[in-house]
Amino acid sequence: MKVLLISDTNIFADGVPSITYGLRGLVGVEFALHGAKTDLHSGMYGGTVANPAHSICEMIAKLHDANGRVTVPGFYPDVLPLTETERAMWQTLPHDDTRYAGELGVKELFGEKGYSTLERKWARPTLEVNGLTSGYQGTGSKTVLPNRASAKITCRLVPNQNAEKIGDAVVKHLESLVPPGVRMEIIYRTTGSPPAITPIDSPAMAAASQAMEMAFGKKPVLQREGGSIPVVAWFKETLGIDSVLLGFGLPDDRIHAPNEKLDLPYYYGGIKTCAAVYDLLAEKLK
Amino acid sequence: MKVLLISDTNIFADGVPSITYGLRGLVGVEFALHGAKTDLHSGMYGGTVANPAHSICEMIAKLHDANGRVTVPGFYPDVLPLTETERAMWQTLPHDDTRYAGELGVKELFGEKGYSTLERKWARPTLEVNGLTSGYQGTGSKTVLPNRASAKITCRLVPNQNAEKIGDAVVKHLESLVPPGVRMEIIYRTTGSPPAITPIDSPAMAAASQAMEMAFGKKPVLQREGGSIPVVAWFKETLGIDSVLLGFGLPDDRIHAPNEKLDLPYYYGGIKTCAAVYDLLAEKLK
Repeated sequence: MKVLLISDTNIFADGVPSITYGLRGLVGVEFALHGAKTDLHSGMYGGTVANPAHSICEMIAKLHDANGRVTVPGFYPDVLPLTETERAMWQTLPHDDTRYAGELGVKELFGEKGYSTLERKWARPTLEVNGLTSGYQGTGSKTVLPNRASAKITCRLVPNQNAEKIGDAVVKHLESLVPPGVRMEIIYRTTGSPPAITPIDSPAMAAASQAMEMAFGKKPVLQREGGSIPVVAWFKETLGIDSVLLGFGLPDDRIHAPNEKLDLPYYYGGIKTCAAVYDLLAEKLK
Repeated sequence: MKVLLISDTNIFADGVPSITYGLRGLVGVEFALHGAKTDLHSGMYGGTVANPAHSICEMIAKLHDANGRVTVPGFYPDVLPLTETERAMWQTLPHDDTRYAGELGVKELFGEKGYSTLERKWARPTLEVNGLTSGYQGTGSKTVLPNRASAKITCRLVPNQNAEKIGDAVVKHLESLVPPGVRMEIIYRTTGSPPAITPIDSPAMAAASQAMEMAFGKKPVLQREGGSIPVVAWFKETLGIDSVLLGFGLPDDRIHAPNEKLDLPYYYGGIKTCAAVYDLLAEKLK
């Protein structure tokens, strides 16, 4: 048995030791729409040529349906459905929509209908506009009819979606949506990183769970993560090795941000877990 | 009889002396949509909260219908319809859609159905997005779920639309379109400038036409202009004075732009026209 141990994840909440067994993948596209050969005076030309800022909005508005589902053909067929075990397991986690919304400063949550918040962030793919640009960006008004608009898009992917395939499908769908009067340019389509999932009933997961329980006095919960760690899927693809994501961060650690922290109890608990898991895995390897 | 002579317009084309008798007005609105209290990691949060970049595209996509008409309630009722005389007069002007599209570098023209290109730019109101901003604007990809999106909009108005009224109607319509999960902020709504029109059968217009014919040896055509000269409507409102827009620029003069020019024959013709028009108006004032 070979297994890859990675410490690059959070636990679910303070007091809830957790092992992560799934990650979302990623693929990105940036595209631009071109109208007239220069920006134009909105008085002298407005009403006679397409405005790429309108065209890009029309296109982006069509990328989701009224149920918050992505409209790209071929986007969902490969999505690994959630098992009843997973749905039931996640329902027991100490998550509260009202508190979560309050922490983010929004009045209401939003997303694909038919799935809980945790299901949407861990097990459902997304298509998000990360950047949108057209025309005049400064303070006040400028009566320009812009000749260019562009958008950056990334999709978070879930097992078993294929990043290349979804990237191509997004580009093809965008091509089908280009309105009259503008020309589309694909600025880039990233190669993407694959989603990953580790069997929750493997001996390595059992060892990790046992080690964490020894260190924290509490059986860990099993969760997925909405972000991406591309190397996990690459190890699986290239070497056939599953990963166990054994992290000790708290959700409020402000990772990669100013004033990052690591709580000492989780630092010491992490040391104990790691010592225990190597012992337990060595046992199983005998 | 009092009349205001303004030289701030172009003639229709080289060899086509022209008098301008109508101008579009203008009103502008900038608005922002706010989502979460900060930008978010698109992996850790994507799929759970509204993305203002999507929301703003949905809203903007709804501002025009499939016929290119503005959907703002109350936008069109006050629009002064084109007379048969005007439509017929403009059809005789040396305008060619294919050449016009070629000059702008577009494959096809675009705009409100049921109107010619000149009608759309001179006699129909527009709503244009002049600027659109959300999320990451630099090179390459960034997996941010933006918490803000904003758009600058201006409407070109035609007689007898009221700038304040249309500005209010646009704001009200935007309010009705805000999707769930985001909050709208109106950054500004300009006071706007009114559209203007001068009766084409007035004695002053006749004098201007006669003067231009004396200077250029050719009866001028009557046109409108898609841009705005706010003072024209203000003189009319405040002092009750009509304007005659007697300009001598060519469409390719690159006004307000590098390498601006004024063709000498039109400079000398302008001097002659102005001398003549003062004489003729003095006659009429006797």
